Amino acid sequence: MDKIKIDSRIWIKKGRKNYLGKGRIELLRQIQNEGSILKASKKMYMSYKAAWDNLHQIKAIGEQDLIVSNNGGRGGGGTYLTPEGKRAIEVFDRLERLKVAFWERFDSCQSLGDVLEKIIELEAFLSNLPDQNP
Amino acid sequence: MDKIKIDSRIWIKKGRKNYLGKGRIELLRQIQNEGSILKASKKMYMSYKAAWDNLHQIKAIGEQDLIVSNNGGRGGGGTYLTPEGKRAIEVFDRLERLKVAFWERFDSCQSLGDVLEKIIELEAFLSNLPDQNP
Repeated sequence: MDKIKIDSRIWIKKGRKNYLGKGRIELLRQIQNEGSILKASKKMYMSYKAAWDNLHQIKAIGEQDLIVSNNGGRGGGGTYLTPEGKRAIEVFDRLERLKVAFWERFDSCQSLGDVLEKIIELEAFLSNLPDQNP
Repeated sequence: MDKIKIDSRIWIKKGRKNYLGKGRIELLRQIQNEGSILKASKKMYMSYKAAWDNLHQIKAIGEQDLIVSNNGGRGGGGTYLTPEGKRAIEVFDRLERLKVAFWERFDSCQSLGDVLEKIIELEAFLSNLPDQNP
C-alpha cells in the first residue's frame, strides 16, 4: 500500500491579519542576502511593486520594523534586516521544523485506520500538556 | 499588542500524491448529504466536470473506493459513500481538530519571542513522545 503523509502549510497571523508566511519570510531572507529590495525581488521572480506591497503590509501589521532602509549616501543605499527581522526568519524556520516533526508522527500510517489510531494517541498527549495559561 | 495566531492548512497525501484535502472532503460530505454527484457539485459551486475529475483522482490514488454509484433502476440512480468514504470524512475532521488543538498552544503569544518560547516547549514535548516505530 502507498504510504500516507500529512502535509501542511503554516502562516503567522497577527490581530486576525496574515502577517508572515513562507513567501514573505523568503523575501526577508533574500533582503538579508542581497541588501536590497530590488535585488531581493528579482531573486524571488517578483515585481518590485509586489515586494514593496508585501513589506508595507508587514510594517502595517507588526509593532516592530523588520527591515530598515539606508537611502543613499556614499556607495548608495541599502535595505537590511533589524534584529526583529532576523528573529522573524528564525522563528518561522523553527515553526516549520516543529510542524514537520508533529506531522511526521503519521509517516508510519498506511491506511485511514492507522491515521485514526495516531490521532487518538496524539490527542491524548496534547491533553496531557500543561495548560497554556497557567 | 495584537495577538499572534498560527494558522494552517492540512491535506492527506498518499504515495506522494495529493489525496484528500478540505475541498475533496467537502465534496464527499455533500455527496453524503445529497446522494448525487450533480447535486453535490451544485452545492459546492463547482462544475460537474470538476467534481467528477476530483472523484476520479481520489479513486485512482486510493486502494478502496470512497463512493459507490447506483446507475438507474426504479427511482433513478444515486451516489453514496462507502464505509471507507465515511471514515475519510471522520479522519479528516479529527485531523483538523488535532491541528487546531496543536497550534492553539500559541494563542497566548503576543510577540515573536513568546512564539520562540512556545516552540521550545513543544519541541521538548514531541521529543518525549514514544518513538513512532517501536
